[in-house]
Amino acid sequence: MALILTFLGKGGTGKTTIAIATAKKLATEGRRVLLAGQDPSPVLGILLETSVSFDPQPIAANLDAVQLQTPVLLERSWEELKQLETQYLRTPVLNNVYGQELGVLPGMDSALALNAIRQYDASGKYDVIIYDGNSDLDTLRMMGMPEIFSWYIRRFRKVVQESDFWRAVSPFIQPVTSVVLNVSWTGDSFAQQPTNDMNNILDRGKAAIADPNRVAAYLVTNETATAIATAQYLWGSAQQVGLTVGGVLLNQAPVSEGLTAKFAPLPVTGIPTTGEKEWGIIGQSLPDFSQAAAAPRPIDIDVANRQVKLFLPGFDKKQVKLSQSGPEVTIEAGSQRRNIFLPPGLSGESVKGAKFQNGYLIISF
Amino acid sequence: MALILTFLGKGGTGKTTIAIATAKKLATEGRRVLLAGQDPSPVLGILLETSVSFDPQPIAANLDAVQLQTPVLLERSWEELKQLETQYLRTPVLNNVYGQELGVLPGMDSALALNAIRQYDASGKYDVIIYDGNSDLDTLRMMGMPEIFSWYIRRFRKVVQESDFWRAVSPFIQPVTSVVLNVSWTGDSFAQQPTNDMNNILDRGKAAIADPNRVAAYLVTNETATAIATAQYLWGSAQQVGLTVGGVLLNQAPVSEGLTAKFAPLPVTGIPTTGEKEWGIIGQSLPDFSQAAAAPRPIDIDVANRQVKLFLPGFDKKQVKLSQSGPEVTIEAGSQRRNIFLPPGLSGESVKGAKFQNGYLIISF
Repeated sequence: MALILTFLGKGGTGKTTIAIATAKKLATEGRRVLLAGQDPSPVLGILLETSVSFDPQPIAANLDAVQLQTPVLLERSWEELKQLETQYLRTPVLNNVYGQELGVLPGMDSALALNAIRQYDASGKYDVIIYDGNSDLDTLRMMGMPEIFSWYIRRFRKVVQESDFWRAVSPFIQPVTSVVLNVSWTGDSFAQQPTNDMNNILDRGKAAIADPNRVAAYLVTNETATAIATAQYLWGSAQQVGLTVGGVLLNQAPVSEGLTAKFAPLPVTGIPTTGEKEWGIIGQSLPDFSQAAAAPRPIDIDVANRQVKLFLPGFDKKQVKLSQSGPEVTIEAGSQRRNIFLPPGLSGESVKGAKFQNGYLIISF
Repeated sequence: MALILTFLGKGGTGKTTIAIATAKKLATEGRRVLLAGQDPSPVLGILLETSVSFDPQPIAANLDAVQLQTPVLLERSWEELKQLETQYLRTPVLNNVYGQELGVLPGMDSALALNAIRQYDASGKYDVIIYDGNSDLDTLRMMGMPEIFSWYIRRFRKVVQESDFWRAVSPFIQPVTSVVLNVSWTGDSFAQQPTNDMNNILDRGKAAIADPNRVAAYLVTNETATAIATAQYLWGSAQQVGLTVGGVLLNQAPVSEGLTAKFAPLPVTGIPTTGEKEWGIIGQSLPDFSQAAAAPRPIDIDVANRQVKLFLPGFDKKQVKLSQSGPEVTIEAGSQRRNIFLPPGLSGESVKGAKFQNGYLIISF
């Protein structure tokens, strides 16, 4: 299992440059590194001074690079889906549609990228995968997908199970999704302890993203007001999708007390101003990325004290909305919404109280 | 009908700043302007020095601003969908799921934003809508959606119409999509002349995006190599989704012959370096955005000469892939894929030849 690292921050603050410097540094230290770029423009290739293929190719010792190409990934996934359909359905319908003709709809980039990263991780070929996203909102949507998609299945299973609609579509949807996601639409696996669910691809994704030794984000900012505000916003938003933020990289500016206070308790690391492609100099100033687990965790569920604590820095009380319209507790902050899947003992209980304190939302049951 | 303007370019080149300056300038000239921001971070509010709501609010004479908030838009669309379901289905299933609890999956941001822009346009309240996207790839996916989604319906209708799956889902999918999209899944509206299809919401979207007097993009770049390469890449990619690029804004640098040559035949406009929030100075240097129709169009179909010309600047021959695996002609370039819906006379014909000349892909039938 690899450590998956990503960098979040306003456009133009140097995220791709820092991603490359990190990849090169860790590879030099002997870690097997994959640098995966989501941006389809030629920027990654220009900075690396080599063409980057849509399959991982070595670009230095211990270092592979890949440019995730949605049409290619879509084509491959489609052919796999057709295979499964032929295998599991009596009358497959997708056979005459070809992967090469499928257009790309919104959302496909993120879903296919997450699947590709999962496969690179499972290959066992890499110790570290550095994901250079195309947009931070997309990266957060992608990281939030296993949890939110699980919620949709959990929620809609109950709703549709007894409906005409479900009876109609279930012969078509069940066989393939059961194989692809290992999700049981009608069983009770969701009611079991999370530890029993580890065969489920979505639950494995959720567990990985919740574990800062598996997936961690670092904020990148410079000293402009808009970049700092964006980084703060992304900090809270990342926590909202369950992604731990390990620290802050302040690019091309000296670390000040004022700035450190804005991101406390995260460590802030200054990255010196360098000439173009001075990877070594940037590399020397990078922090130890294995320390992300020391940062505050996005969520802490304490069954004994009947309390759930969510760390939502960068938001104030007015920006955080807590509701219980469905069967679960819903937290909204920024443009992220999270439903909290409570363990037995708290599951199904009503919220008794909530307070916002030092960036934490503390909910009592 | 409003003119919808958007700016494409590498992060950090000043797109949001130029979007604001454009909005302020056009409002001062008496046009009724809506500035719609997709980025959920506080940046737009900081630059405008006012809070921006998720419903349009006046921020100056003739100028409204809105921050498109996906959870809010999702909630509203969900309630509308539930209404429709209750109206058109005997046994509605969505009634007990609440808009307030729905999480945001990848792709929802773009789909909901496009729908919101469509509604603001239809309201008749605005002469110009300036869309400040969160990421250019997302903006292109969004603009490409009406055409690509139409293709999916067109393609899959043929495939599934005779299947067990279709017979099972059609009672549930047909009534609601017919109302929402005015799409006939089983009828022959797609075989008719495009002009007869204008009641169809997707076809209206396609027509708007294909018309540079309705929707136009401008490239923003500075003089760094990566920003220029990104702008060139975005130019071709925008054309690939049918979106006309009207010109180039070169931010904080003097216009040189070398740069003009890179973007010929587009006009390149220099934007001077200014202090922060010097909207007036930036505004004075902006081009006339109503001239986008003078720029080369993404596609030209000539039935008489049995020829289709696609303008794909920024790509070379090797990066453009032409195939005919399905019933239509598929063009792939960058991470965009386009299926060309041919008019009667060329529809269903095989490609006889293709050449790549001065940025144009010329296909003969």
